[in-house]
Amino acid sequence: MAGAIVIVSDRCFNKSMEDKAGSVIDKFFQENDLLSKCRIIVPDEKNIIMETLKRLCDTDKMDLIVTSGGTGFSPRDVTPEATKMIIEKEAPGLVLAMLKGSLEVTPTAMLSRPVCGIRGSTLIINTPGSPKAVVECLNFIKPSLKHALQLLKNDLEPVKVTHD
Amino acid sequence: MAGAIVIVSDRCFNKSMEDKAGSVIDKFFQENDLLSKCRIIVPDEKNIIMETLKRLCDTDKMDLIVTSGGTGFSPRDVTPEATKMIIEKEAPGLVLAMLKGSLEVTPTAMLSRPVCGIRGSTLIINTPGSPKAVVECLNFIKPSLKHALQLLKNDLEPVKVTHD
Amino acid sequence: MAGAIVIVSDRCFNKSMEDKAGSVIDKFFQENDLLSKCRIIVPDEKNIIMETLKRLCDTDKMDLIVTSGGTGFSPRDVTPEATKMIIEKEAPGLVLAMLKGSLEVTPTAMLSRPVCGIRGSTLIINTPGSPKAVVECLNFIKPSLKHALQLLKNDLEPVKVTHD
Ligand code: NA
Repeated sequence: MAGAIVIVSDRCFNKSMEDKAGSVIDKFFQENDLLSKCRIIVPDEKNIIMETLKRLCDTDKMDLIVTSGGTGFSPRDVTPEATKMIIEKEAPGLVLAMLKGSLEVTPTAMLSRPVCGIRGSTLIINTPGSPKAVVECLNFIKPSLKHALQLLKNDLEPVKVTHD
Repeated sequence: MAGAIVIVSDRCFNKSMEDKAGSVIDKFFQENDLLSKCRIIVPDEKNIIMETLKRLCDTDKMDLIVTSGGTGFSPRDVTPEATKMIIEKEAPGLVLAMLKGSLEVTPTAMLSRPVCGIRGSTLIINTPGSPKAVVECLNFIKPSLKHALQLLKNDLEPVKVTHD
Repeated sequence: MAGAIVIVSDRCFNKSMEDKAGSVIDKFFQENDLLSKCRIIVPDEKNIIMETLKRLCDTDKMDLIVTSGGTGFSPRDVTPEATKMIIEKEAPGLVLAMLKGSLEVTPTAMLSRPVCGIRGSTLIINTPGSPKAVVECLNFIKPSLKHALQLLKNDLEPVKVTHD
């Protein structure tokens, strides 16, 4: 399975801040048998985020895209809106697993606005900008992540796949 | 109150698999004073699901529709998308009750993508394909189901109804 | 910070019932350093609710709008639909905090359909009609409310704001 990392941050994009979430996601990919195919840094611009995600799904055929950043309440935070525009199916169970788990760690999690969803056979997961929060969120969905990616590829026995 | 059952499954539709969720929903209807008016099996086709749901709401005036199947991550799973297209109001509290309850039973529940909502005076509930998961989901919403159906019919005293 | 209260209720609007939720929200505003700028009563009419919310965001530049009423299953309940139409960003973490907390108090909470979201730099929160439920819901989001309003105003240090 192939994974892509998209860091959404004006500051990281213009190099006034160093990205620290990318290597955290990279480590998660390695631990979960995902090939880390690319790491892209984009500014908090809705159109750029949308085009980047679409290309990673449609052209690069990634199995998983994890975004970091732009999910909060700041005026420039638009990652969830960009993601919602380009997914074909929402995955509210993954959102709940992340938010519910995060809320048990810190009340600030209620200000996170992640979207999870599917475009073609690619799963897209929004995580916050903070490396600590990224790890937490990814660990909350880890128990079902591999199964999700297999289902998207139609990689399971037909009977199980059909009636789920 | 009248209830309809919609089984969404290519395999059950083309008779390569026997439907087992239908009788489970039927039993739930009986135990909850709902008349089971029809059981329909449709393939995993968005337009067919949409037309079926619309007819059950607009023409047949069902109080409740429970769908089973097509809520997962397989490429053909489109029941939530079809449901979202035809409902007028979303019911996120029912979705949360089902997902939260299911997540406490199994982490696989995070791959469920149910939509619950209202069209006219009909409540539509998406449940998974597995009979076991169907029963669990229906039991999670059971405590407020009758009240929901009464409110939709405007069947409660005006004061309570108005300021809710 | 400036807050507005919008009571959505046909009965309160036509004066056949007295509003009790308004003063409860007012008290919450006072306890949380929010200036209570206005209290408006509107009927359960989607267009009127939408226009009222838009004016409070765009012209009156409120930091926070709390609505009460119209979030249930009665045919006239359309506050969430009106809110969803005019927000630019959804805040599912706040919705989860309210619904999860409320569900732990009463199963009836699963019939609540609140929307929380952002328009410009205004946060909009839907709460139920019952004064008791209003207080509960506001207390569930209280731990992160001030932080949310500061982020919306870009009132925090740049580094923290950017990478959230
Ligand atoms: Na950011």
